[in-house]
Amino acid sequence: MQKLKVGITHGDINGVGYEVIFKTFDNEDMLGTCTPVIYGSPKVAIYHRNSCGLQTNFNIVNSGAEAREGQLNMVNCFGEKEIKIEYGKSTEEAGNAAFVALERALQELSEGKIDVLVTAPIDKHSIQRPDFQFPGHTEYIEQRLGNGAKALMILAADSLRVALVTTHLPVSKIAENITKDGIIEKLNILHQTLRRDYAIDNPRIAVLSLNPHQGDGGLLGTEEKNIIQPAIVESFKRGIRCFGPYAADGFFGSGSYRHFDAILAMYHDQGLAPFKALAQDEGVNYTAGLPVIRTSPAHGTAFDIAGKNQADPTSFRKAIYAAIDIYHNRKRYDQAYANPLRKQYYEKRDDSDKLKLDQVGDED
Amino acid sequence: MQKLKVGITHGDINGVGYEVIFKTFDNEDMLGTCTPVIYGSPKVAIYHRNSCGLQTNFNIVNSGAEAREGQLNMVNCFGEKEIKIEYGKSTEEAGNAAFVALERALQELSEGKIDVLVTAPIDKHSIQRPDFQFPGHTEYIEQRLGNGAKALMILAADSLRVALVTTHLPVSKIAENITKDGIIEKLNILHQTLRRDYAIDNPRIAVLSLNPHQGDGGLLGTEEKNIIQPAIVESFKRGIRCFGPYAADGFFGSGSYRHFDAILAMYHDQGLAPFKALAQDEGVNYTAGLPVIRTSPAHGTAFDIAGKNQADPTSFRKAIYAAIDIYHNRKRYDQAYANPLRKQYYEKRDDSDKLKLDQVGDED
Repeated sequence: MQKLKVGITHGDINGVGYEVIFKTFDNEDMLGTCTPVIYGSPKVAIYHRNSCGLQTNFNIVNSGAEAREGQLNMVNCFGEKEIKIEYGKSTEEAGNAAFVALERALQELSEGKIDVLVTAPIDKHSIQRPDFQFPGHTEYIEQRLGNGAKALMILAADSLRVALVTTHLPVSKIAENITKDGIIEKLNILHQTLRRDYAIDNPRIAVLSLNPHQGDGGLLGTEEKNIIQPAIVESFKRGIRCFGPYAADGFFGSGSYRHFDAILAMYHDQGLAPFKALAQDEGVNYTAGLPVIRTSPAHGTAFDIAGKNQADPTSFRKAIYAAIDIYHNRKRYDQAYANPLRKQYYEKRDDSDKLKLDQVGDED
Repeated sequence: MQKLKVGITHGDINGVGYEVIFKTFDNEDMLGTCTPVIYGSPKVAIYHRNSCGLQTNFNIVNSGAEAREGQLNMVNCFGEKEIKIEYGKSTEEAGNAAFVALERALQELSEGKIDVLVTAPIDKHSIQRPDFQFPGHTEYIEQRLGNGAKALMILAADSLRVALVTTHLPVSKIAENITKDGIIEKLNILHQTLRRDYAIDNPRIAVLSLNPHQGDGGLLGTEEKNIIQPAIVESFKRGIRCFGPYAADGFFGSGSYRHFDAILAMYHDQGLAPFKALAQDEGVNYTAGLPVIRTSPAHGTAFDIAGKNQADPTSFRKAIYAAIDIYHNRKRYDQAYANPLRKQYYEKRDDSDKLKLDQVGDED
């Protein structure tokens, strides 16, 4: 079986991207699990390698299509161009380098030259430009390769998976952005993702309340009664096993989260603060709901420790594993559902498409 | 040395209050650490004891002043009155019983018949009445025995301590209730509490940001720049070692919380969801900033498991220990600062009250 080609962007070159990439692949075992293809700059890579005192070798190729098994490959996206590295700083030059590498990787991902994409962290300020005006990778990739599909941000560590109804919003705007349709849409994507990408046949989803104490019967807010509860009821009727809404603090404090395959939180800190408190360095970010597969470590550029050989590659390595697992799960799922059995029995007085085995004996 | 008298209210009689009280004091060691005084109903207590198959004995007294060492004492607040117990239900009768016991305990606490108070959980709905219109114990005790002082809710588990700027508010109201003065006030109370009640001489406090990613330079909100940052700067100038604002998810995910003696969160779920995720059953709630000392377990009435002998008394037992520790820390602090040394040197041309040892030699 051919190994999967895992595309990897170098992210912000003033952060810890190259360090966690090199640390992850300085290891025969990792090179046995996939064929990695970095989209970056050999010159920048060597500078980082020297700063951190690492030894990892890489092999330069023209595209993901040429990547060699058993080696760490790199597509040079910058030719002979010199790029200035300023550890810990947000610079236009670094933002530009992050964008160029990401664009090249997305191009090759859409052409099938790589199978999945793992992105090193970018700096959300320096990357902004006329053709990149998004809060992060998630929104950009949704627009660039989503084909109209909606992305859902999922943070995962083993069986703890947290998805968000709203993501990058000021707290003052959260409540007005919680809608019944929004929750139903996220529940749909999450349900389908758990089945197709995480191979959970009949997943259970917990929905958190927006307000403290589930709104305390209206004393602390009405969104639970008017928006969240109806969204849960409607989704449940459509076959999604979703429950709640649960008050976030008690839900995490009692260990209830262990009884669900995923948790839908209403906003960023509500979901991610307890998630990261529990997952620590093990978290992986997955952009669900899209035709392409993209994961990333749950940490950021870590400017404060860039170039100092202090970065922990665990989350990045887990992001690689997650992308590979999701690819295989999705393939198996799609194969299993590619050729459904033809219906064998029809109720004569009924146009419905459903198989009605219990009525077979009654047919005349 | 006489043991401390720890007053204990029975809380909502349809919940797990009596169960965790009995489980905590079914134990010689616990009866050796303090003299417990329950404010409750012997009849209700025996009903709970039977439901849960427990054996703990108690001794009926007329007031905390009569409590006997080495025994579990109970002040009967209800005479011969029958009170209907309906496990798991929010009833007016149970709300009334919770209120009567709380009132009696607060009365005796203010008279010095008990030294500290530990409250079992109440149901916030059934206890509401013309003379109790508060979201919980914290606000009621602040008004009843605060003498004008402001209460600060602190959740603590070992060295992890989380305090909140806003507490029981709908998410839609959080942002408008974050003010510079409010944060400065909470930082003051927290700083003083860490010194006086937790015996930390020079505490370090972390302040969380309101918005995700610390507001991301204004992209995700301006409260960090306009309100929180100035509050931190001003408090720091006044001698409080406070730092931040930190983005909540990264702060808990990176383990940074271990470097601080307390964390000031901006709102309920932001502070309590990660706190409870980390502390699980070990959390204790402390009403700081008041002349009286009151703690409680971090869990609620647990209606779903009431009367089933399934409740874990750990948090309640920790609440007892915490109240005792705080009492002793506060006593030591007050003794240490009761008679400050008289100033010995004055700068002649200066009315200031400060000791200026470095200028002594210059005096003429």
